[in-house]
Amino acid sequence: MTVPLDALLSHIDANLDASRARLFEWLRIPSVSAQPQHAQDCRRAAEWLRDQLAGLGFRAEIRPTAGHPCVVAHHDGPGRADAPHLLYYGHYDVQPPEPLDLWASPPFEPVLVEGPHGPRIRARGAVDDKGQVMTWLEALRAHHALAGTLPVRATVLVEGEEEIGSPSLDAFLERQRAELRADVAVISDTGMWDIATPAVTTRLRGLVYVQIDLRAASRDLHSGLYGGSALNPINLLTRILGELKDAEGRIRLPGFYEGVAELAPEQRREWEALGFDEAAFLGEVGLSVPAGERGRAALERLWARPTADINGIWGGYTGPGSKTVIPAEAHAKLSFRLVPGQDPQRVIAGLRAFLDARLPADAKAEIQVFGASPAIEVPAESRWVRAARAALAEEYGRPAVLMGSGGSIPVVESMRRILGLESLLMGFGLNDDQVHSPNEKFELRCLRHGIRSHARLLAALGAG
Amino acid sequence: MTVPLDALLSHIDANLDASRARLFEWLRIPSVSAQPQHAQDCRRAAEWLRDQLAGLGFRAEIRPTAGHPCVVAHHDGPGRADAPHLLYYGHYDVQPPEPLDLWASPPFEPVLVEGPHGPRIRARGAVDDKGQVMTWLEALRAHHALAGTLPVRATVLVEGEEEIGSPSLDAFLERQRAELRADVAVISDTGMWDIATPAVTTRLRGLVYVQIDLRAASRDLHSGLYGGSALNPINLLTRILGELKDAEGRIRLPGFYEGVAELAPEQRREWEALGFDEAAFLGEVGLSVPAGERGRAALERLWARPTADINGIWGGYTGPGSKTVIPAEAHAKLSFRLVPGQDPQRVIAGLRAFLDARLPADAKAEIQVFGASPAIEVPAESRWVRAARAALAEEYGRPAVLMGSGGSIPVVESMRRILGLESLLMGFGLNDDQVHSPNEKFELRCLRHGIRSHARLLAALGAG
Repeated sequence: MTVPLDALLSHIDANLDASRARLFEWLRIPSVSAQPQHAQDCRRAAEWLRDQLAGLGFRAEIRPTAGHPCVVAHHDGPGRADAPHLLYYGHYDVQPPEPLDLWASPPFEPVLVEGPHGPRIRARGAVDDKGQVMTWLEALRAHHALAGTLPVRATVLVEGEEEIGSPSLDAFLERQRAELRADVAVISDTGMWDIATPAVTTRLRGLVYVQIDLRAASRDLHSGLYGGSALNPINLLTRILGELKDAEGRIRLPGFYEGVAELAPEQRREWEALGFDEAAFLGEVGLSVPAGERGRAALERLWARPTADINGIWGGYTGPGSKTVIPAEAHAKLSFRLVPGQDPQRVIAGLRAFLDARLPADAKAEIQVFGASPAIEVPAESRWVRAARAALAEEYGRPAVLMGSGGSIPVVESMRRILGLESLLMGFGLNDDQVHSPNEKFELRCLRHGIRSHARLLAALGAG
Repeated sequence: MTVPLDALLSHIDANLDASRARLFEWLRIPSVSAQPQHAQDCRRAAEWLRDQLAGLGFRAEIRPTAGHPCVVAHHDGPGRADAPHLLYYGHYDVQPPEPLDLWASPPFEPVLVEGPHGPRIRARGAVDDKGQVMTWLEALRAHHALAGTLPVRATVLVEGEEEIGSPSLDAFLERQRAELRADVAVISDTGMWDIATPAVTTRLRGLVYVQIDLRAASRDLHSGLYGGSALNPINLLTRILGELKDAEGRIRLPGFYEGVAELAPEQRREWEALGFDEAAFLGEVGLSVPAGERGRAALERLWARPTADINGIWGGYTGPGSKTVIPAEAHAKLSFRLVPGQDPQRVIAGLRAFLDARLPADAKAEIQVFGASPAIEVPAESRWVRAARAALAEEYGRPAVLMGSGGSIPVVESMRRILGLESLLMGFGLNDDQVHSPNEKFELRCLRHGIRSHARLLAALGAG
């Protein structure tokens, strides 16, 4: 049976406050995957979602992994052999809320507060990813409510370890490969172009994340007695990392740019046409001058060029006042955002060579790898992207932008590699949502349009 | 009256165990000046010393300062107008003992343990500076015991804030200028050449200690979303500090070497003749290659060339695992060891200019100054140094070396500037004494020879 689109959309609007209330229920569960004391909360968040899905006619289960469990659910849809089969992916875990004193209200007591775009939901997980999961969950609910079934076959996979790097996910996908068969993965964990302009993300940068541990003397030394003779590993670390980029901002690891293609002219033109305002983007965080590679446009630097950022550094005495120590060790955490063509293992090998070429005899450098995932490009001309862009354009009254993202969503690569599935990245977050920061928020308007966009997409795909 | 030297030395040897026991008493008082919970212990350590001095015929008092009190004591000596007047300086405070788990025995429960050179005293403060203070205190005691008086006029000044940079000392010296008049300051807070070879230290490097606080964006940023556009202050800090030295190990602050003289040829020859074994010096701490300025001899680098060491660095995420943050701030602590001719204020100005020349528009750098004292050279041909070298040569049966020290003792400069006093630096520490580290020790042999050397010096100076 077919539900008239206007009835579907009216139903969603009429029930928006109930949708919001359900999201609040979920947000009240502090499912912080990184903190062992919240392990039970993670399970409760999974159970909450399982129960919601069961209420929509899914066969829904909690599935154990080596870490926090996954929610897996199945709905046969209309029973037509030609109905497409969507795999909805999301995550129920959230980032730690700390530092708590910077929150305007408690992170796990969601509130509606008035913002420049109307009411917004403030809570940890409001947008990442509970709020975004709600956009498709409530769309499924609307179809279920009006039609008694769904217009497509649907499988749901919602994990609980995304914020800690999904350590158990690949093994789970391998094990459940048969069960997780589908035509496409649908993911809402990305952003819009701006609050008025919808987007489908087709490029995600990859990520290599490492820690460098530099060691020199066998113990901490007095800088008066040894200064001028003993190797100082902090001086050495700054000298090595200070050479990470040349004067043009290009990264100097051997082989780093191997395989990196120049942007296609039409892609460049498309992105130029978007009219990205980098001055405003930087001005919002107190900066004024772009700091990346010289001679590249802003979106090219953010979406299509690799980076090297030092995310943490430490060594020696870091307390108040002074201590005249030449420490035995110094450490840094580095991340490289990768673009298509770059092999994470080759980047790590390049870093190793870069370090080795700069290490004096008395220094040892160890590299610990905390993440190594390649960049992803999703085919922009697929049936799924076309349908999503059409649904978004109808909902927003303007074309949906094909976007890149500077961030990384390793699951997209895992699903391609293990399940052979492409992903459709249709997200409703905004740049100023404070993801991973205090006062994370999700615009109520984004929630509403998100639900309606997913409902439209379901209707269109179900109509064949 | 004159005491025969052999009687004096025999008395010292016969009472050595009592001297050691007294030192143990003092070492059991945890007079850690940096830790507020030990303020009462600092006062107790001062009172202990006051009582000892009173027992030797001194008029001894505890004197308040803005911080921990000083011990001041006076002895008129033999009452001869031509008797020299010595000002003994030392400090009763000690470094914090942490980390405690690296101590082989509790830091404030002194023990005698057997080492390669015979018994050694292990405790926090064993050598720095309680044990070294005991070398002259017990020498004074021996003279007092055998002669009923001292062969010289003596004033004692022992402070309780040396390990936190002597913040109250200059004001105290200013206030007590008249009371602290003397002919020379005698300080035992330096080292020997090696366990068999005594030394008088005539060069001390100065010290500029600063903290650099670098600030960029108004908040921490996500490295995926902002990487390639936003300035990363850790990357910037490593780039700036990585340029601190050129390929030859020369420090690149503008004007840094202004006023630094080349070593006089006879000084160079003298130091060469010492036959310093840098390979052994470095080998003991697990290093093999000198890391200072190219083309300079080891002792020149350690005693007569300035340095730039990063003593601490921190910024961004430093916990376990990964966090993809571009932080708002990055910090470093730097120290510069200075040699004669360098003006600490000019070094700070040079650092400011060095930073300013490398700061992009969006970065701000603040410099906090925690210390700024010039290098010191003590006239090697003075009556006092001659007498000390003679006493040491007799005691050890070999000439006393004229040494430099890479470390800094700011009080030497304060006493010259405020009291017009030169210092005689006759010390009995060894390189491997673990000063400021766990398992600090003082060789019993060094204590004995130290007491005997001071007793000889007193006898010689008293004889005119």
